[in-house]
Amino acid sequence: MNIHDLIRELREPAASKIVLLVADGLGGLPLEPGGKTELESARTPNLDACVREGVCGLSIPVLPGITPGSGPGHLALFGYDPLQHRIGRGILEALGIHFQVGPRDVAARGNFCTVDEAGRITDRRAGRPPTERCVAMCRKLQAIRVPDVEIFVEPVREHRFVVVFRSDDLGDAVNDTDPQQTGVPPLPARGADPQSERTAAIVNRFVAEAAGLLKDDAPTNMVTLRGFARYPKIATMQEVYGVRPVAIAVYPMYKGLARLVGMEVADAGATLGDQMKTLRRLWDEYDFFFLHYKYTDSTGEDGNFAAKVEMIERLDAEIPQVRALEPDVLIVTGDHSTPSKLKSHSWHPVPTLLWSLRCRPDPVTEFGESYCIRGGLGQFQAMYLLPLALANAGRLGKYGA
Amino acid sequence: MNIHDLIRELREPAASKIVLLVADGLGGLPLEPGGKTELESARTPNLDACVREGVCGLSIPVLPGITPGSGPGHLALFGYDPLQHRIGRGILEALGIHFQVGPRDVAARGNFCTVDEAGRITDRRAGRPPTERCVAMCRKLQAIRVPDVEIFVEPVREHRFVVVFRSDDLGDAVNDTDPQQTGVPPLPARGADPQSERTAAIVNRFVAEAAGLLKDDAPTNMVTLRGFARYPKIATMQEVYGVRPVAIAVYPMYKGLARLVGMEVADAGATLGDQMKTLRRLWDEYDFFFLHYKYTDSTGEDGNFAAKVEMIERLDAEIPQVRALEPDVLIVTGDHSTPSKLKSHSWHPVPTLLWSLRCRPDPVTEFGESYCIRGGLGQFQAMYLLPLALANAGRLGKYGA
Repeated sequence: MNIHDLIRELREPAASKIVLLVADGLGGLPLEPGGKTELESARTPNLDACVREGVCGLSIPVLPGITPGSGPGHLALFGYDPLQHRIGRGILEALGIHFQVGPRDVAARGNFCTVDEAGRITDRRAGRPPTERCVAMCRKLQAIRVPDVEIFVEPVREHRFVVVFRSDDLGDAVNDTDPQQTGVPPLPARGADPQSERTAAIVNRFVAEAAGLLKDDAPTNMVTLRGFARYPKIATMQEVYGVRPVAIAVYPMYKGLARLVGMEVADAGATLGDQMKTLRRLWDEYDFFFLHYKYTDSTGEDGNFAAKVEMIERLDAEIPQVRALEPDVLIVTGDHSTPSKLKSHSWHPVPTLLWSLRCRPDPVTEFGESYCIRGGLGQFQAMYLLPLALANAGRLGKYGA
Repeated sequence: MNIHDLIRELREPAASKIVLLVADGLGGLPLEPGGKTELESARTPNLDACVREGVCGLSIPVLPGITPGSGPGHLALFGYDPLQHRIGRGILEALGIHFQVGPRDVAARGNFCTVDEAGRITDRRAGRPPTERCVAMCRKLQAIRVPDVEIFVEPVREHRFVVVFRSDDLGDAVNDTDPQQTGVPPLPARGADPQSERTAAIVNRFVAEAAGLLKDDAPTNMVTLRGFARYPKIATMQEVYGVRPVAIAVYPMYKGLARLVGMEVADAGATLGDQMKTLRRLWDEYDFFFLHYKYTDSTGEDGNFAAKVEMIERLDAEIPQVRALEPDVLIVTGDHSTPSKLKSHSWHPVPTLLWSLRCRPDPVTEFGESYCIRGGLGQFQAMYLLPLALANAGRLGKYGA
């Protein structure tokens, strides 16, 4: 039986409130054998107080050994099996620039590239042009018209842009036109089914017109497109879990991911302080609050152990404000690990804390990877965290008599 | 989504090397409450050094409570779901005598038995004849000819032999001819589908001829056959995991199991010392090394606690030689537990150690069942160990953006 069907059957209304605080890339590694991780090194008196009253564990975002991107990492925390619900590259790129993709859209990631007189690619990234040039070139492409299709071309950064084709019945089983090598021309788009053939025809027409418009603009004189993806059809958190969820995030991609599962997206400002104000302001309007904190991930990606420690301590300082609102359930976790030692996302399980008056406390007294090993939640798949939150919030009835 | 499809999608080439050292039946039990297991009793300074730098856990070969045979135990460690990939008894028996089964083969386990004048079985094992007699009887049966079929009859031990039928389009949905009781004649073979009906006809002809050839050879005057099995079609480790694997094993069955998943099988000699020499010799040619050590299992099966402790200590003494080769990932585990207290395979989770520079060390400082409970790998299904190894070897990319 599908876990979502089970939850739909068992969920019960309640006035309780759940806070899911995602410290992006929270998990880490010690720099030396016998050393401490970033989280273990940080002074976190407020999180530790939650840990002593709550229950800890280690969350496996997808499967053992699998390193997730932000998409699967968050989908799992929102209670969706990340192997069942895949979000294509084009859609994620669109979400990342705050483009509001919808159900009639096929999105693709675009690259400006350089071609020679014979049309063969000589530089797949057009020499990484300045973003200003990317903006100007996208403006040119915005002039392209194809009957019965709305086309959006939006700059991302350097050679990167997003293109969205909006029409009825567009398929997304379309190959990348980027041949992933130089010395050959871009590939024509082909559709693997009738709806995708329609998309491919539109794509080929768009690319032909783009070639004409850009022909005198070397090095940005051609485009390749890849990661064609339709807006995924996902049952909303309200439908499955019966909550009224709101996302309090700063960065567009996380807002977009939240919108994908039906969350409302708050105007949360730009700082953690703004996010806390937003949380207080919206406290009476919603019952599920997704707070996203980016800087534990970005400092990890930078390989800056000390900065990640500091970002964790800054987050800790805000915990009393969350507790003061008296949520019924407070979860603090990450969507994946980003050890500063590796400067990248990783597969290592993520330290997780669940505080509620109904949880069964365990012997863990400090928040940290090696302490969480002994936690009462054990090691668990991230997609089960939301059912656990609902249970602790008194929102799940009994299965069977 | 299938885990193998996911791995095929995410795997990345790398020059890193993985050593999987399987101490067969490694897990054990204390003889008395409060006592230590075999592994905990053994002096293992070299394994303990790996434990302090690495991460430990307990591997569940199949599912909680399920005791695996050698086939499923190893398939799981090779990264195959042992419930999805089943290896029939006939194939395992053939592998166990180093018979090179192939894709056109149906193999069965044979028993010499005794029948009375009416053809009713009076002893299902023919009084456990000496192996020399088994060899002589098999030689007689090797004279049997059936058109369009190659037949191989090979002795195993005492009353046991293997028969392999080689032809095109043979099915293996054929019942055992062993009625599992005395006082009745052997059952005729019947096929459950057209291809298996063809096999059954061949089997019945073989058995009839065998009865004629053996009629004056009481107590070994008849045969029963069971566990008809085709050579399983399994995607190779190279195809799924992108590694170049080699098996360094002494016993035929483990070489055969390795061959099943596409490993090359080294000429490894007869002793652990020979195996270590082979490992050094082949170090530059492969990137995945399966080392099989049998004696932890055989001493456990014998119920000899002290001997199992000694075998573990002998294995420990070779660990520095493995470390000296500087593998990127070293895993030490078992395919199942074989507690000498039980004198048999058991369902108890298997102590497991994963050493790599990218692992997240845990507080475990000694190798042993009760210490591994606190390990950072937690309790996990054995089939996920290979994805973990690949991740630690820098051979798996990110899932989703």
